[in-house]
Amino acid sequence: MTSLPLTPLLDKVRYPADLRELEDRDLPQLAREVRDEMIDAVSKTGGHLGAGLGVVELTIAIHKVFDTPNDRLIFDVGHQCYPHKILTGRRDRIRTLRQEGGLSGFTKRAESLYDPFGAAHSSTSISAGLGMAVAADLSGTDRKVIAVIGDGAMSAGMAYEALNNAGALDARLIVILNDNDMSIAPPTGAMSAYLARLASGRTYMGFRDLGKKLTAYLGKTVDRAITRAVEHARGYVTGGTMFEEMGFYHIGPIDGHSFEHLLPVLRNVRDNGQGPVLIHVVTQKGKGYAPAEAAADKYHGVNKFDVITGAQAKAKPNAPSYTAVFGEALVQEATLDEKIVGITAAMPSGTGLDKLAEIFPKRTFDVGIAEQHAVTFAAGLAAEGFKPFCALYSTFLQRGYDQVVHDVAIQGLPVRFPIDRAGFVGADGPTHAGSFDTGFLASLPGFVVMAAADEAELKHMVRTAAAYDAGPISFRYPRGEGVGVQLPERGEILEIGKGRVMKQGTKVALLSFGTRLADCLLAAEDLDAAGLSTTVVDARFAKPLDADLIRQLARHHAVLVTVEEGAVGGFGSQVVQLLASEGLLDNGLKFRSLVLPDFWMDQAKPEVMYAKAGLDAAGITQTVFKALGQAGVGVNAAG
Amino acid sequence: MTSLPLTPLLDKVRYPADLRELEDRDLPQLAREVRDEMIDAVSKTGGHLGAGLGVVELTIAIHKVFDTPNDRLIFDVGHQCYPHKILTGRRDRIRTLRQEGGLSGFTKRAESLYDPFGAAHSSTSISAGLGMAVAADLSGTDRKVIAVIGDGAMSAGMAYEALNNAGALDARLIVILNDNDMSIAPPTGAMSAYLARLASGRTYMGFRDLGKKLTAYLGKTVDRAITRAVEHARGYVTGGTMFEEMGFYHIGPIDGHSFEHLLPVLRNVRDNGQGPVLIHVVTQKGKGYAPAEAAADKYHGVNKFDVITGAQAKAKPNAPSYTAVFGEALVQEATLDEKIVGITAAMPSGTGLDKLAEIFPKRTFDVGIAEQHAVTFAAGLAAEGFKPFCALYSTFLQRGYDQVVHDVAIQGLPVRFPIDRAGFVGADGPTHAGSFDTGFLASLPGFVVMAAADEAELKHMVRTAAAYDAGPISFRYPRGEGVGVQLPERGEILEIGKGRVMKQGTKVALLSFGTRLADCLLAAEDLDAAGLSTTVVDARFAKPLDADLIRQLARHHAVLVTVEEGAVGGFGSQVVQLLASEGLLDNGLKFRSLVLPDFWMDQAKPEVMYAKAGLDAAGITQTVFKALGQAGVGVNAAG
Repeated sequence: MTSLPLTPLLDKVRYPADLRELEDRDLPQLAREVRDEMIDAVSKTGGHLGAGLGVVELTIAIHKVFDTPNDRLIFDVGHQCYPHKILTGRRDRIRTLRQEGGLSGFTKRAESLYDPFGAAHSSTSISAGLGMAVAADLSGTDRKVIAVIGDGAMSAGMAYEALNNAGALDARLIVILNDNDMSIAPPTGAMSAYLARLASGRTYMGFRDLGKKLTAYLGKTVDRAITRAVEHARGYVTGGTMFEEMGFYHIGPIDGHSFEHLLPVLRNVRDNGQGPVLIHVVTQKGKGYAPAEAAADKYHGVNKFDVITGAQAKAKPNAPSYTAVFGEALVQEATLDEKIVGITAAMPSGTGLDKLAEIFPKRTFDVGIAEQHAVTFAAGLAAEGFKPFCALYSTFLQRGYDQVVHDVAIQGLPVRFPIDRAGFVGADGPTHAGSFDTGFLASLPGFVVMAAADEAELKHMVRTAAAYDAGPISFRYPRGEGVGVQLPERGEILEIGKGRVMKQGTKVALLSFGTRLADCLLAAEDLDAAGLSTTVVDARFAKPLDADLIRQLARHHAVLVTVEEGAVGGFGSQVVQLLASEGLLDNGLKFRSLVLPDFWMDQAKPEVMYAKAGLDAAGITQTVFKALGQAGVGVNAAG
Repeated sequence: MTSLPLTPLLDKVRYPADLRELEDRDLPQLAREVRDEMIDAVSKTGGHLGAGLGVVELTIAIHKVFDTPNDRLIFDVGHQCYPHKILTGRRDRIRTLRQEGGLSGFTKRAESLYDPFGAAHSSTSISAGLGMAVAADLSGTDRKVIAVIGDGAMSAGMAYEALNNAGALDARLIVILNDNDMSIAPPTGAMSAYLARLASGRTYMGFRDLGKKLTAYLGKTVDRAITRAVEHARGYVTGGTMFEEMGFYHIGPIDGHSFEHLLPVLRNVRDNGQGPVLIHVVTQKGKGYAPAEAAADKYHGVNKFDVITGAQAKAKPNAPSYTAVFGEALVQEATLDEKIVGITAAMPSGTGLDKLAEIFPKRTFDVGIAEQHAVTFAAGLAAEGFKPFCALYSTFLQRGYDQVVHDVAIQGLPVRFPIDRAGFVGADGPTHAGSFDTGFLASLPGFVVMAAADEAELKHMVRTAAAYDAGPISFRYPRGEGVGVQLPERGEILEIGKGRVMKQGTKVALLSFGTRLADCLLAAEDLDAAGLSTTVVDARFAKPLDADLIRQLARHHAVLVTVEEGAVGGFGSQVVQLLASEGLLDNGLKFRSLVLPDFWMDQAKPEVMYAKAGLDAAGITQTVFKALGQAGVGVNAAG
């Protein structure tokens, strides 16, 4: 083990109250020590590094100036919260980040009073902060609420909705726009360009201008409504910033690594003024760690790494990732069909769409963190005969659900939805799990809903989706590596609504949708060994179901178990609805449906999560034994 | 019958091609005739009047100038599309609007080539239009795409996401901002105030300024990238509008009732320029019909009415509407508990929250068409110990789904979700049906999911939700009138997860969730009469289920039928999951689950829709007979 960094000042700071005892002049040293501690911790756990390095000074300055946790500090997304965790009583557990039983990689209410609102998805902080600021007003307290949001997060409609509402209310909300011109990928869209113009058009606001600005903002003896009316008029005549037009007082840009800038601004805003204020702070992602500063992605998310060299530990892949297989298969199909286009919501590399962008830049669209728009933009393209692949993570597709229903499904438009990160996601925990997509899509009339059991299946489904033009179609696949099967040269076009029998038995039928197929096959070995002849089917489709095949399974087996990596209401519910409506449950068939458990599961290794969920081979086997009133324990299941 | 209006000019215009044959000077008369025709039609059908009256000139001008349907015209929301329908080959069916088998009240792809993208939910048009504009670019056609969007719709994040993306692309998208300072209710938020400043700060742009503006816009010989860079710089220095900051060329405001303004601007934009352009058009909702102009809601949605007096036919209510009962019950609880606050997304009267706003204006928040923000804003309030009722229609709750999952459910915050318009909605058709909420909420760990069987139950559920502080809770109720039961003075606090037995039988169990209870009771009469002793239970809760009660039903009846006004994946799926997991399906229980059918049902009278869905008494009875292999027909069922 390498030795821990020397952190004499930080060692005295367990909570923000300790930090407030320090002199302003001590804060740069504290910042250096927090950086060292954080770099060391993440070098051991992996996780999000660049974002946290960029906000060390800002985090310290906020805790120095504001009375956290009584004042509420909300970090948007939460990727940048590690320095905050170090400074709020969680330093002793910082090397458990993202590990089972350890600290969450995001802010989390259950973890600390200093996390008044948890996050993980982007762009929620202004809404939550406004709710808290209004609550403070209604309660008659003078509590401050501070929301720290990145420039990338400003592309989301939700942030705009919140600004729009905040600007019309007079709540005391402090929004700190942390502008590092970088989210997970370089941000895109007009707002990003606008912020860049703001930041480059003026140098950092000088002290004199800052003073004027603050004086104007403070004007305490003047009736606030008049002040704002005047300010609005001024903004109109001379051209206020967009934030001023939206009803915010806008200060900045200021240097987010300079305590000399940060502290007086924050103190003034704390002590004076009314209404919503936006402080535009410019920071550098990865600041203070040379390898991060030099890297294109600013070490956004990293594996364990060597602190001296910055070299990240390379995982030894057994198989290509699903994401990579998808990206390559899409390029292959797009090469053969010029109507194929790709859409990503600020996740070009996360979704594998960066591969398409390399070869077909004009047919690849990064719309920003804007899932609602992504879906309907895709629908517009589909209406004109294009074949859009709108590639989102399962958990982020939730953001575009109404658009999927209203703009795609009701109109029957052939938008293709590759759904990455479907099911458990390991270290990212419950906020990123893809649990609900099968249910919320399969309930939509006319939707074709697929799941890939392995990476070869994924390739087939990319081609099937490309070829299918009769309506919306989705295919889900998990985070991480494939199972290592041979990949076909090119995917095949699957017959819509047809499953495949992997193994024929007579007594027990395991009907798998998606990734649990391998464990079903393992379970079948155990069951066969226990004298229970087992059929295993890969359903491929949750909608339309392979009704003929399912009827056969029901008629010719004593036990039928559906298995899926999704919540109740999805594949199993579709199957049992068919069985019930046709009376196929009436004659003693032992039907069971294995789904994700009904609790939010914290981060852990995937295999631990599957076991907890009863979705591994052992869990499947036990379900069958229990259904048959047997207590047998299979070979693999016991392993 | 009154005679039809005289429309000599309109009689010659069946399609826009005919309109294009007219002289510009004929258009004001055409506008008058379209107004007369529309007023007459809506006086007979009811529907959306004010919005259409406001865009008569704009609609005519667009069709006159652009080559529809080859050029794509997209109306946002679609409330304003009746003049468009009159002018695009659908005049002969205009008096079937919103009737079964008739024209949709919205634009609809399946209905006409002139509706290239259907709508009904707000704020989708810019996204769809951008998709189409990009498609035109990729196809190398010079097709124009025009999106007409109201100022109210600009409060939605989705519109901003689309502007943000469009401003960064260089697609040839024409956005017409139809600013009538009015959506369904007066619009709210900073953007609305900003538009009002734009419209009042300058008078309508004079011809000279307009000329300059267009000349600047057109500058064809100048490299477009340079032009835009210069314009951006200019905007930054002298203060461009927000739309200019977002990368749009911004023209206006202009008078949307003046062909002299509209035609030259549209022609210039059609023939010249590049990149996205926004034309700010000021119109008056209800224009040209005195009773509408005088009404506070500008006759947004009307019943049949007398054309001369404007007097609307009054429906004779048999019972108060669910919305009214909710609004009053919430006021009652809010009077007793100052922590209760109400949140609406631009639907104060539609949700009944106008009643709360009257008495507790500071505790009522209209956040604009901004469901994502509404949900997380509520979560922020809940985190501070308030009791937010976030009142949305089922179909619009889809817009905030990710926020429900991520900000409310995962954090276990006690946000209350009153869900209006759950189930079929009659004349508004499939885009407004509330079909999916039970499924997408009941799949979330820790959520309490209720449905009201009648208006007294709704009152209980309002109080229950007010009293329940352990996590998120929802209660759904339908559009329209209650069933006429006696209302309690105040609601009771229901025991969480407990159903109520309405009628005890021995052979058949009908387990109802929500509004189908009355039909279950009717069906039970028939079944009893046919010798099938029937139990009827009002489940009240889809989550947590009344497991004890459901076990009893399963053990002591031959048939168990769940009945709900929602898609597969909801209540019935929860029930069968419980039964299957406990082996209660294994012994010959005939389980059936009645849900909404798997197709999008067009507008019709609710009773017709229930019959089609098999969710009326007759359908329920038939399901039981069929399950038992009997062909019997009951008394009520036959009626």
